[in-house]
Formats: sequence, C-alpha cells, structure tokens
Amino acid sequence: MNKKVVYMDYAATTYTKPEVLEEMIPYFNQYFGNPSSIYSISRETKKAIDIARDRVAKALNADRSEIYFTGGGSEADNWALKGIAFAHKEKGNHIITTKIEHHAILHTCEYLEKYHGFEITYLDVNEEGIISLEDLKNAITDKTILVSIMFGNNEIGAIQPIKEIGAICKEKKVFFHTDAVQAVGNVAIDVKDMNIDMLSLAGHKIYGPKGVGALYIKKGIKIHNLVHGGGQEKARRAGTENVAGIVGLGKAIELASDNLDTHNRRLVELRDKLINGLLEIPYTKLNGPTGEKRLPGNVNVCFKFIEGESILLMLDAMGICASSGSACTSGSLDPSHVLLAIGLPHEIAHGSLRLSIGDGTTEEDVVYVLEKVPAIVQRLRDMSPLYDEFVKGDEK
Amino acid sequence: MNKKVVYMDYAATTYTKPEVLEEMIPYFNQYFGNPSSIYSISRETKKAIDIARDRVAKALNADRSEIYFTGGGSEADNWALKGIAFAHKEKGNHIITTKIEHHAILHTCEYLEKYHGFEITYLDVNEEGIISLEDLKNAITDKTILVSIMFGNNEIGAIQPIKEIGAICKEKKVFFHTDAVQAVGNVAIDVKDMNIDMLSLAGHKIYGPKGVGALYIKKGIKIHNLVHGGGQEKARRAGTENVAGIVGLGKAIELASDNLDTHNRRLVELRDKLINGLLEIPYTKLNGPTGEKRLPGNVNVCFKFIEGESILLMLDAMGICASSGSACTSGSLDPSHVLLAIGLPHEIAHGSLRLSIGDGTTEEDVVYVLEKVPAIVQRLRDMSPLYDEFVKGDEK
Ligand SMILES: Cc1ncc(COP(=O)(O)O)c(C=O)c1O
Ligand SMILES: Cc1ncc(COP(=O)(O)O)c(C=O)c1O
Repeated sequence: MNKKVVYMDYAATTYTKPEVLEEMIPYFNQYFGNPSSIYSISRETKKAIDIARDRVAKALNADRSEIYFTGGGSEADNWALKGIAFAHKEKGNHIITTKIEHHAILHTCEYLEKYHGFEITYLDVNEEGIISLEDLKNAITDKTILVSIMFGNNEIGAIQPIKEIGAICKEKKVFFHTDAVQAVGNVAIDVKDMNIDMLSLAGHKIYGPKGVGALYIKKGIKIHNLVHGGGQEKARRAGTENVAGIVGLGKAIELASDNLDTHNRRLVELRDKLINGLLEIPYTKLNGPTGEKRLPGNVNVCFKFIEGESILLMLDAMGICASSGSACTSGSLDPSHVLLAIGLPHEIAHGSLRLSIGDGTTEEDVVYVLEKVPAIVQRLRDMSPLYDEFVKGDEK
Repeated sequence: MNKKVVYMDYAATTYTKPEVLEEMIPYFNQYFGNPSSIYSISRETKKAIDIARDRVAKALNADRSEIYFTGGGSEADNWALKGIAFAHKEKGNHIITTKIEHHAILHTCEYLEKYHGFEITYLDVNEEGIISLEDLKNAITDKTILVSIMFGNNEIGAIQPIKEIGAICKEKKVFFHTDAVQAVGNVAIDVKDMNIDMLSLAGHKIYGPKGVGALYIKKGIKIHNLVHGGGQEKARRAGTENVAGIVGLGKAIELASDNLDTHNRRLVELRDKLINGLLEIPYTKLNGPTGEKRLPGNVNVCFKFIEGESILLMLDAMGICASSGSACTSGSLDPSHVLLAIGLPHEIAHGSLRLSIGDGTTEEDVVYVLEKVPAIVQRLRDMSPLYDEFVKGDEK
C-alpha cells in the first residue's frame, strides 16, 4: 500500500514509540517471571515495575507509593468514582462532575445514580467548555463526597482551572479526582501544587501501549477496590501485573515529560496554523477555547450545512485519519454531548470535525490537510439541501 | 549469566510464545489505529480483534458474540460476581462458592458480603479438593442467584465435576460461573455441553501476554458492567481495546486448543514422574487428586517438618523456580487456605511446595529437580527442631 496516510487522530490513540516498544519486548519472554514470586528471575520484573512507578510518580510530582497501575484510563476513572462512592457513602451520597466528561466518567455517574442511590450534579460549561468556579462552590453541600472534573477535554481541548478547583475542594474538604487522560504528556501537572487527590491516565494517549493506565491516589485516602483478589499493587488492584505494558507506560511518560516544552511549542504552532487555515473556509466555527486554555494537539471545528460522518469518509479517501467526536462514540449517530454542552444546536454539532495532532505530525501534513479540506467541504455543501436553501435565501 | 534455570512455576505465569509475540508486534506501531474509528487504517485492528474473538469462542465452543475481553483473569472474576450480584439483587442476595477459590473470587465475595448485603456460602471440599454435589444442591435456596466454582485449582490442581455442577445450576435456575484461568489450555472445555453461563480466563497462563483476559457470558444474561464508559465490547466493557494483547490471547488460545491432547499426554507423564519421584522422600504427602482429576501440569507436595519458604530459597539457589502457594500470596506468611480446606494442619500446610510444569519443561528438568530436592529436604530437616524431636522420639 503506497497510499499517503496523514494521521490526525492522536487524541483517539497514538502509535507506540519504537524506543518504548524496545523496552517492553524483553518482558514478554525473557524476564517473564511473576513479580510476586520469590525466585531470582522474578526480581527483574519486580524491579522493572518499580522503575515504571517512579517514572509515573515523577511526571506528576507524586510519591511512588501513590501510583497504582490499571488496565487503562476507563478502569482508572471507574475505580476512582465507584471506589470513593462505595467507601464514603456513610458520609454522603453526592458527587459533582461536569456535562463534558468522557463517557468513562459520565456513564459511571449515571450507573451510581440509577442503581446505587447516589446523586450527581453535572456542572454546565461556558461556550469555551470551561466550568464556572462559582457554580462549583455553590454545588458543594454537606452530602458531597467527591468532585470529578476532567483536566483537558478529549473533543474540544478545553483545559479546566484545575489548581483553582483543587483549592476549592481542599477548603470544602471533598475529594478531587481529575481525568487527565488527555492532559498527561501535554500539560505540566503537579498533583501537590494543584491539590489533586486522584488522577487517571492512560498509556496509549502518550505513545505507550494500549490496555495499561494508572490511578494516582494521594496517600491516606480510603477507597474501595474495583478489582479484588491477590495482593498486587499493595492489595488495591488485583491481577498479575501487565509487566510489559507497565514498563511501556513508564518509558512513554518519561519521554513525554522530558520533552514537554518543545513538544508543546511545536504542537501549538502547528495547531494554530491548522485552526487559522480551516477558519478561512466560510461558515466555519472553532469549537473550544484558544491559546493556553486549549490542549496543544486539539483542533475542532464545525462546518455549517454538512454532516461530520461524510467529511470523515471523504478525508479517509484522501488518507486523512480524523474523528468527529471521541473515538468510542464515533460509531453513534447522536451529536456529541460536549458540543451540545457548549451551546451548539443539534444540526451544527453534527457537522464537527476533530483533527488531533501529535509527535508524528509534520508541517507538510498540515499543509496537505489545509489543501484538501476546503474542496471536500465545498463538495459536500454542493450536495446539501440545507446549503442550497441557504444560498438561495441569500440570493433573494 | 550462565546459571541453569529450571522454571517450574507455569501456574503462576508463562512466557509469551515467540509465535504469539510475533503476531502482536505489528499492532503496537503499524496497525495502531483505534478500532472504534471509521477510517481505513482502523479496519485492520478491528479485524484483528474479530479474529481473536473467534479463536477464543472456538476454544470454548461459544459464540463470538459471547466473548468479552478484559484486563486479566481477576477482572473477569470480579466482573462476573459483582455484575451478576448487582444486576439480580432484587431476585436474591445469596451466592455459593467454595473454600478453595482463587482470591479474585474469595475477596470479591467477602467484599459483597461486607459492604453490599450479600450472603455467601463457601462449600467445603473433600481431602482431594473436590466439592460434594449433594452439598451444592442443599446449599441452593430461593435466594440463590449465582454459583461460582472454579474449574481447576491453581494450588493443588483439583478439577471439579463441572458438567454435573452445570446441570444442577441449570435445573435450579441459578447462574453458573466458573473461574477457568488454570483450566483453559489444559483441559477440554465446552461451555454448551457443560452448561456454563460465565467463564473467566487469562492470557498469561497459556503462553500469551499478561494483562489481558476474557469473560464468556452466555447470550441473554443480564449483568452490570464493572467498567462503564465507551461503547467497546458491545458497551459491556469500556476502554480502548488492548489490541496487541487481544491478538496475543487469541493466538495463544488457538495454539493451546490445537495441541491440547499431545500437550496433556506429555505433561501428565512428566507430572506423574515428578510426583512419584518426590513421594520417595520420607514423610512426603501429595496434595490434591491423582490421574484425570488433576490438572496435567500441577504437582503439590508437603514435606513434613520444614517450611515452604526455606525450600523455595534453596531451590532458587539451584536455579529451580517454584512456588509455595499461589503466586499472589507467596509473599504472605499465612498457610494456604486451599491446603487448610483439604484438612492439612497449619504446620504441615506451611511445608508445601508447588511445582507446575508446562510446554518448556523437559524430561531433563524433571530429572534435575528429582536430583536436587531430596538433599534440600534432608538439609532443612537436619536444621529443624521439629524433625529432631521426631527422630529422637522414634529412637526411643
Ligand atoms: C484460578 C485463578 N483465578 C484467577 C487468577 C487471576 O488471574 P490474573 O492474575 O490474570 O488476574 C489466577 C492467577 O493468578 C488463577 O490461578
Ligand atoms: C478524557 C478521557 N478519559 C478517559 C478515556 C478512556 O481511556 P481508555 O480508552 O484508555 O480506557 C479517554 C480515551 O478514550 C479520554 O480521552
């Protein structure tokens, strides 16, 4: 296959970097011993997990003892929410989150609401996708046990005022969890300075493998297990450790942290070039904030009068990989809950396109996309009855 | 390092077979697309997952639509138990299991008991480690919603009468889950013929990767999710799919099923040779059943008067990797709950040794172990005050 491929869906998943894969390989069949065993050949795997844990801890300014490996970002999110909910329901049954969380948070909240007697407040966001700190303060009651607000949004890139949220939660004595699956490796994070009690992350968004993630849990927090069983992860997350995956996550997060500044500067430049180019197309609107309030790799625009799905198919025909919402719902016909939350009407939310860039993205890729998209949009509009009506209306 | 290593801890974990790893590699950075995306490069990953699902289904005589991938055996066990418990608590709050389950089952049951209002019956086993079908029948009440009984035991290799258990559960209309983490790839399994409603398995016990497993859920069964979020796995298990891991699990289970008979015959022969050799050591007792009722790779013996931990350290010095209980508790000082359940007194349960063999085990390995163990046992006994007393008592 000699077809040009321009991958612009890094927010859905990344490739595993060669140097990450290289570190992982020996743990499949050379150092394969069960880390819980006592013989020498298991010492290598135990050590490798320790190193990975140190690397994750360092990236977050946490302590090694506060990092727990999981099977991914969704598991970490479910664990944080259900674990705190079940462990503290005597104190209160109220949880606060936002309308623009990933489904790993939203569906978990809905489940706790429907089947386990919890009450959830879903905070609104403004047209940029940012919550109001006043709203948050007002929502906290003496029944509130947990606030879960994402760090950076996967669809529109909005970065929340995490440090301010942390300060409010600390003052009000409620736990603060943040889903940082999109933020880690893209934004500087300091759990101490930001007063974060729990934080979720995943390997496959930062050039590590899929199927591995971590939950940071601040020392001393009482939380129920999501996965009970053996004594792994200090008896908090059972299951034989995914050693190769953990090693990969550790290496990936180290690479990401070491290069955070240059990575960001490069991406922000490409991102803004892409945004500015796309906004030259008539009747096009940027979704989400600009500048520092936006994840460096995220571009999300709406083209009036057309369907997101059709753009994706035509982009695919040109080798451009993009997404209309988050990957896990892109099969669905519902418009994105995030775009609805920032106030877009249904018919416009349907015409959205997310282009997310990353380490493999070049200037050339951006130029290629900016060359192709305008013609695709025009072609789709030419076939659109809505556009036809609009143009005729204009001509009258 | 040129030291001889004889690995006899296959029940703790296996190496990943080279042909399995080879199939996995391209999914890290060549076919890395998110399977939920709609562009062409994701089609490869979607297809790869379908193939793996078919392979797992075939190995169990299940339908492809009944296989759900998880992050390991423990997650599958937790999902089956909590998922059924929470979904059917209106019908009843009673669950039946056994005293010799893996901790992924036992600790989950204890959790449901302590925090969620469930009542658990822990069935006894006989001196071979096998439950009584009469006991099971008698334990089922109109509040019983689930029976969870393991297929093959990880410590003493006891294989339960699964087909008979399935028939009883079917007749009494209660769900039947079996933890087959140790049985898959070692025993022929047919979920239809055996009336199994749910079955857990893990990749790293069958020469696949760690951190991936599966839960078979019979069509039509209502079960709550353990991990909520995106629409993956037909909206039953959220999280970006661990594509490489799933591919590895699929390949590993296919290899295991294709070679089941020859694999078994070979292992049974080596196993029995090992057992017979060890039983020649004085005051040595076999734990668990013999013949067909025992997993083909499992050997577990007690040497009176000595501590399991000391044997392990001395074996390790000779390059022999073994275990005293299940890997995840081998760090613990409590005697194995399984050995206590088959009636061993505390002090004898402490002196147990599990040697589990597998595809890499050779006749030579067995000979080597049989050469080394008697001297180690004798040396430890010579240092043991208990043995000293016993011998003196004998001499009187
Ligand atoms: C019988 C049994 N059940 C469950 C498990 C848990 O599997 P995993 O460690 O892959 O989560 C194991 C392995 O440790 C096992 O032997
Ligand atoms: C913000 C956010 N949270 C959670 C997740 C879930 O992570 P995973 O798919 O690794 O379970 C994702 C990725 O899909 C995400 O973007």
